[in-house]
Amino acid sequence: MDTLVNKQESMSQVITSEELLAHFQGHRNLTRRVIEKFPEEDFFNFTIGGMRPFSAMVLELLAIAGPGVREIATGQVQAFDENRDLGNKKEAYLKLWDETTETINTYWQQIKPEQFQEKIKIFGQYDGTVWSSIFYFIDNEIHHRGQGFVYLRALGIEPPAFYER
Amino acid sequence: MDTLVNKQESMSQVITSEELLAHFQGHRNLTRRVIEKFPEEDFFNFTIGGMRPFSAMVLELLAIAGPGVREIATGQVQAFDENRDLGNKKEAYLKLWDETTETINTYWQQIKPEQFQEKIKIFGQYDGTVWSSIFYFIDNEIHHRGQGFVYLRALGIEPPAFYER
Repeated sequence: MDTLVNKQESMSQVITSEELLAHFQGHRNLTRRVIEKFPEEDFFNFTIGGMRPFSAMVLELLAIAGPGVREIATGQVQAFDENRDLGNKKEAYLKLWDETTETINTYWQQIKPEQFQEKIKIFGQYDGTVWSSIFYFIDNEIHHRGQGFVYLRALGIEPPAFYER
Repeated sequence: MDTLVNKQESMSQVITSEELLAHFQGHRNLTRRVIEKFPEEDFFNFTIGGMRPFSAMVLELLAIAGPGVREIATGQVQAFDENRDLGNKKEAYLKLWDETTETINTYWQQIKPEQFQEKIKIFGQYDGTVWSSIFYFIDNEIHHRGQGFVYLRALGIEPPAFYER
């Protein structure tokens, strides 16, 4: 009995696959609200210290999230492309953002629990495990969104609350 | 046999406790290098858009990381205090940063695997699970460090590479 209990305890996850998906999508939801806060013009043009405008950072996030999860789920490697031309309207970015939400939800269901610890070379370039790649997707989004927060503050706009997802 | 294999697979973790600790400390290592990059004076005074100087954000991170992990490990609730007076030298911040690294490593070993899914009210205030609290500690650090990157860029200083931990 003791052995059984211990076995069950050792099976308890630090974080489950479903929780990690919800965590990821919660962050993406917050980033979406940051995009919405930007005035159209500033989304494409406002910068600080020679950095990219927030639109370019969002293009990078869009190039990572959907394609990255699809590659993990299917094993089909695609080159990383953060230079898609989505035009100069926030609307197109928000549309692709929402499509990406669905892409992630769909392909995530195909990721097997035992895959997270497997080695992968994501986008054919970056060595890691499946979990470390997904964490990188999320961390990189938090990093750039934090920079978007500064852009908004510099523009005199209050960003959404960080803890609301 | 099939059942045994399935059982072992279901025991495979998305991320293990040890991996999460290394991930956390990797981020903290990067933040430490961001602190080092700041000129002494700018660490305490430079701001954009009415935001806090980076030193105040770092005080917040120091108030969260060590005390948070200690509370999770010991169950002893302490009020959140981000207003410690560390003086006006980066050196004192870096010293407490390094002490916190040890505090985290020490108390982390006392967190039981089955604890991560347990509910907790961290600092007596914030409802979540153990894993979601620790993720919040890390995410919040990435968020503010991203803001520190903008401060550095605005000061004409190249930040460390985001992917080096």
